[in-house]
Amino acid sequence: MQATQRRLRRDLEANAQFGALEAVDGHGRTALTGTDANRDARKRLVGRFEDAGLDVTVDAVGTVVGRWTPDSADPSAQPIATGSHLDSVPRGGIFDGPLGVYGGLEAVRTLQDADCNLRRPVDVVCFTEEEGGRFGNGLLGSSVATDRIDVEEALSLEDDAGTDLETSLERIGFRGEGRVDASEWDAWLELHVEQGRTLERREAAVGVVSTISGITHCYLELSGEANHAGSTPMNTRADALAAASDIVLDLESAVRRHVEERSSTAVATVGQLDVSPNATNVIPGEVRLGVDVRDVTQQSIETLVATLEDSARTVERDRPIEVELVRPYDVAPETMAERCQNALRSASDAVGVEAVSMHSGAAHDTMTVSRVTDAGLLFAPSVAGVSHNPREWTDWEDCTTAVTVLAGALGDLAAT
Amino acid sequence: MQATQRRLRRDLEANAQFGALEAVDGHGRTALTGTDANRDARKRLVGRFEDAGLDVTVDAVGTVVGRWTPDSADPSAQPIATGSHLDSVPRGGIFDGPLGVYGGLEAVRTLQDADCNLRRPVDVVCFTEEEGGRFGNGLLGSSVATDRIDVEEALSLEDDAGTDLETSLERIGFRGEGRVDASEWDAWLELHVEQGRTLERREAAVGVVSTISGITHCYLELSGEANHAGSTPMNTRADALAAASDIVLDLESAVRRHVEERSSTAVATVGQLDVSPNATNVIPGEVRLGVDVRDVTQQSIETLVATLEDSARTVERDRPIEVELVRPYDVAPETMAERCQNALRSASDAVGVEAVSMHSGAAHDTMTVSRVTDAGLLFAPSVAGVSHNPREWTDWEDCTTAVTVLAGALGDLAAT
Repeated sequence: MQATQRRLRRDLEANAQFGALEAVDGHGRTALTGTDANRDARKRLVGRFEDAGLDVTVDAVGTVVGRWTPDSADPSAQPIATGSHLDSVPRGGIFDGPLGVYGGLEAVRTLQDADCNLRRPVDVVCFTEEEGGRFGNGLLGSSVATDRIDVEEALSLEDDAGTDLETSLERIGFRGEGRVDASEWDAWLELHVEQGRTLERREAAVGVVSTISGITHCYLELSGEANHAGSTPMNTRADALAAASDIVLDLESAVRRHVEERSSTAVATVGQLDVSPNATNVIPGEVRLGVDVRDVTQQSIETLVATLEDSARTVERDRPIEVELVRPYDVAPETMAERCQNALRSASDAVGVEAVSMHSGAAHDTMTVSRVTDAGLLFAPSVAGVSHNPREWTDWEDCTTAVTVLAGALGDLAAT
Repeated sequence: MQATQRRLRRDLEANAQFGALEAVDGHGRTALTGTDANRDARKRLVGRFEDAGLDVTVDAVGTVVGRWTPDSADPSAQPIATGSHLDSVPRGGIFDGPLGVYGGLEAVRTLQDADCNLRRPVDVVCFTEEEGGRFGNGLLGSSVATDRIDVEEALSLEDDAGTDLETSLERIGFRGEGRVDASEWDAWLELHVEQGRTLERREAAVGVVSTISGITHCYLELSGEANHAGSTPMNTRADALAAASDIVLDLESAVRRHVEERSSTAVATVGQLDVSPNATNVIPGEVRLGVDVRDVTQQSIETLVATLEDSARTVERDRPIEVELVRPYDVAPETMAERCQNALRSASDAVGVEAVSMHSGAAHDTMTVSRVTDAGLLFAPSVAGVSHNPREWTDWEDCTTAVTVLAGALGDLAAT
């Protein structure tokens, strides 16, 4: 059983044209949910589903499902599902999302060609607004499909211009009916580009994810006193930026120690820092920090957040600065189902490629689906680990190998 | 000889109405160059000059001079000049600038009342655009009066909306002729609020400035690599914000040591920090820092800039980060003329108040005037050191005492 590179590549290259960026280094696209580019991409997907004999449905939040019911299958059996998303970040790459959707379709075509004796239907799924590039909440379609967000709430989400999801889906003809229910799937597999360098460094064809890291976002408000940079002596300052720098470096050294001594998968990032008034000749009075903490166990995340809180208290003790910390976003780590990991590893063995067992530091729709059914996540290598960037790239050979592994695993799961 | 508090206060309170802020804690105003508020303030000033018998001229860049030629004076003798500015920063205070202009006028009225035997005319000057709140270059009127910027260049400066200084001065009727030439003044004195806490802490009525700190602005561009906060392990990151934090803290500790060991007047501030892409879940790829370094000797400034450069090289050595440093703004320290300082100290003695000898960390028009003639700078106390803020305050008693000192010093200088 072997996926067909030509077919897969044609689909991905055609999809890359929707929202394609001109004059960039690489192959970039901007295809935000509900835009013309997203409409065109969805329409082509529906056509390609139909070409392959899949029954297409679109749910209320625009999640598209193509169902293949093999002649050998019980149409009422719980399906095996696979998929990903077609929306992109602004100025994103052409593989992040589409590889999992068209890879799912190509896996189905591969299974069709192989004439397997499958007992379950196979669903290929395109979730809406995975990136959160327009309506703020990432993993949106999968959150609705797993009942974490209800349909009405999702449809009322607004973009920066005040247009809601419902209006934008109606405009492009993808405001469907009902709700995809992921808990009805017997199992779920997602193929995605790694967005890191682990596979490239190991020269491995595929990665089988054991755990998706949990994520916490903390925001810290540091309050000092804005004052004249010339007439305020050093010893009477309450400089919120110097205090923030303490916290940035404390966190960096703490997480590095944590990686060395306790948990090699831990990461912590101060990605956002805003200074007020932010003028060269004024001592910073206020600083806001946005911190992202991730690891594969909640305990490790809590340890790092406690370190961050300690650092804030130390700054308050050592400087005339007040620090407030809030933690509005917290998603628990998700362990992938053993039987899904096993199916992906067996399929890799059958293809004769090494499957590296690894964690995912990035969130994916699988993180949400995993809460309601058995789920697995398969990675294809990312050249130089680059993603969310027109330079994102995965060799066609690697794409095809990963889809062959996906097809094998789907066939395995759908056979019982 | 004693300045009249009632007269001075009436002028400052009337001036505070132009561009007055409603509903603020304190007494704020916004009176940018060339606005209606600035026009009204200038018109009232001209009227008050004329009420006191001063001959008024307005130069090409709108700098207003009121000349008093005492009967005893040689009209062709080089005048003694004093003054400041009426423009404010956005949401500024009511003393920063106006105290020096109306204080200069009140000093002249005090000298008139005292019937001194003066040999030189006395000029009261209101410089245009000291704050740089609209046309970008601070100290603009004094820079033209000292031939550092020519008239045409100054008139062609544009605000953010593309309106040039010439048009805005014509609109308010203050685009005059010729150029005030500060090198023709025998000496210059400026009264200004301290904008610091030195006088308040010393419970002193006035400060006589010995040196105005020089100022350098450096900008550092740190280039790392923006990447996914989840899928990029700690040991493969090129985090420009962590690197910037190193530089912020290096500079802070270096200048604190420098203050302890070498120069108590040194200050250094990272007032500006901009992160790109500045998203919580993305490792910062680029950071731009704006640094302000000041001290009373150029050598001390150079030592601190060298420390900053060392810090940048250390970051480049220790991290996969590139740093570029530029230094587009550099103004040398200015030592005040001994005879001006002496005149201010003698006048303080005559009034019976302590005159604290101190430096100025803030720049003033005096910094520019000092390059072409003997100059002195007198400070009145600022409550809590607050300035550029509606909470800026100097007690009326302190204003009046400082004007009495100014009058004494002007009289002293004009007598010979």
